[in-house]
Amino acid sequence: VSATTSYELFYWPSIQGRGEFVRLALEEAGASYVDVARRPDGMKEMMKLLRGDASTLPPFAPPFLRHGKVVLAQVSNILEYLGPRLDLVPEGEAGRMAVNQIQLTISDLVSEVHDTHHPIASGLYYEDQKPEAARRSKAFVSERIPKYLGYFERVLEHGGGEWMVGKAISYADLSMFQTLTGLAHSFPKAMGHVKPSIPLLGALRERVAARPRIAAYLASERRIPFSAQGIFRAYPELDLDPST
Amino acid sequence: VSATTSYELFYWPSIQGRGEFVRLALEEAGASYVDVARRPDGMKEMMKLLRGDASTLPPFAPPFLRHGKVVLAQVSNILEYLGPRLDLVPEGEAGRMAVNQIQLTISDLVSEVHDTHHPIASGLYYEDQKPEAARRSKAFVSERIPKYLGYFERVLEHGGGEWMVGKAISYADLSMFQTLTGLAHSFPKAMGHVKPSIPLLGALRERVAARPRIAAYLASERRIPFSAQGIFRAYPELDLDPST
Repeated sequence: VSATTSYELFYWPSIQGRGEFVRLALEEAGASYVDVARRPDGMKEMMKLLRGDASTLPPFAPPFLRHGKVVLAQVSNILEYLGPRLDLVPEGEAGRMAVNQIQLTISDLVSEVHDTHHPIASGLYYEDQKPEAARRSKAFVSERIPKYLGYFERVLEHGGGEWMVGKAISYADLSMFQTLTGLAHSFPKAMGHVKPSIPLLGALRERVAARPRIAAYLASERRIPFSAQGIFRAYPELDLDPST
Repeated sequence: VSATTSYELFYWPSIQGRGEFVRLALEEAGASYVDVARRPDGMKEMMKLLRGDASTLPPFAPPFLRHGKVVLAQVSNILEYLGPRLDLVPEGEAGRMAVNQIQLTISDLVSEVHDTHHPIASGLYYEDQKPEAARRSKAFVSERIPKYLGYFERVLEHGGGEWMVGKAISYADLSMFQTLTGLAHSFPKAMGHVKPSIPLLGALRERVAARPRIAAYLASERRIPFSAQGIFRAYPELDLDPST
């Protein structure tokens, strides 16, 4: 595949969701890409690939990426493909694996965020699982947020404090930015509570937000706002105080 | 790292859990490895690395693998490292990415299995979340098992029916075997229900179980039995009939 071939991202057109981790990498790199399902008839094209009507390995779910003849799914898999092509990973196997390890741990955290509002079934509405969501959220804000963010803070300390892995920005930093921003949107009380213990993560979030291409992207119409359909929602009744 | 250096697997010593996906790869390849935490004082060594007392990037959780100076965590990341070294992936980037994509989708399914008995918090006992577990399990057996296994059956069809990706066994096949075996242990009713629609997966499970090294491993004391501490448990009250 030629380096100048456009990337085609396939993801639900109205939410940030898991597609946002791919969008941020493409935006930071200034890559030429198309957000297919946001074009006219783009949803039809996405559903065709999802049904497996193509000659390529079918994806289980969006997001997936097409690049020439390559079609691949799963966020961390897509980012592993893009990393060296967009100069968003260190050189060498050890650095790439470290970035992937962090990305996978972020993905685990993001799945747990999803389950705060969908603890019973992703096929049911939030309104049909509210008592369970409140119980899961209580455990999430009091145990999981401190555990995950304490871990990521230690990762930053380990690497010298500026970037998650190595001496330059990688897609793990972009994903960490997205996750911290989403958590602050969904769980302001818990994030206020944990803030004093994660100074390096706080600085990383600001450092990424100030990247010229990221700042331009966040201010553009390409950045879909948070909403009550995405992963990071703002339900006041789930924003529980972790200290009580 | 020399190819003859032993692999050191770090995982909880009394459960199959997520470590089993790594064990199966090492066993199929006949690799030289040590299951560190099952040795005397091995748990101390594992906890030391988990605390981040080493010079390497700390893991968030077991399993993790040490190979010479390399320490890496997250199942799919470990398997990506081992794949080419153990001859358990096709040659070339496209094949490796396809195997990784399947592995990640299996990991998503395995996380959902975990949450059937822990829908509220992994820090609580099952006994403290039984009503929620029954509700989540009902959705899991009626919606998620058919959706995931229907997808994996299509993946097998896509590749010709024998192996998940390519023309030879890969670690995705070993992980699929483990997952099918675990599901049959935990949800015999749902698996009986779905069985007629997944003939290729059923044959794959038998094909992997009959591999000489896998058969020897499964019959050995190295294979830890299923239990009520692992991911795949056998709670009759969660083995709900998906058709009712």
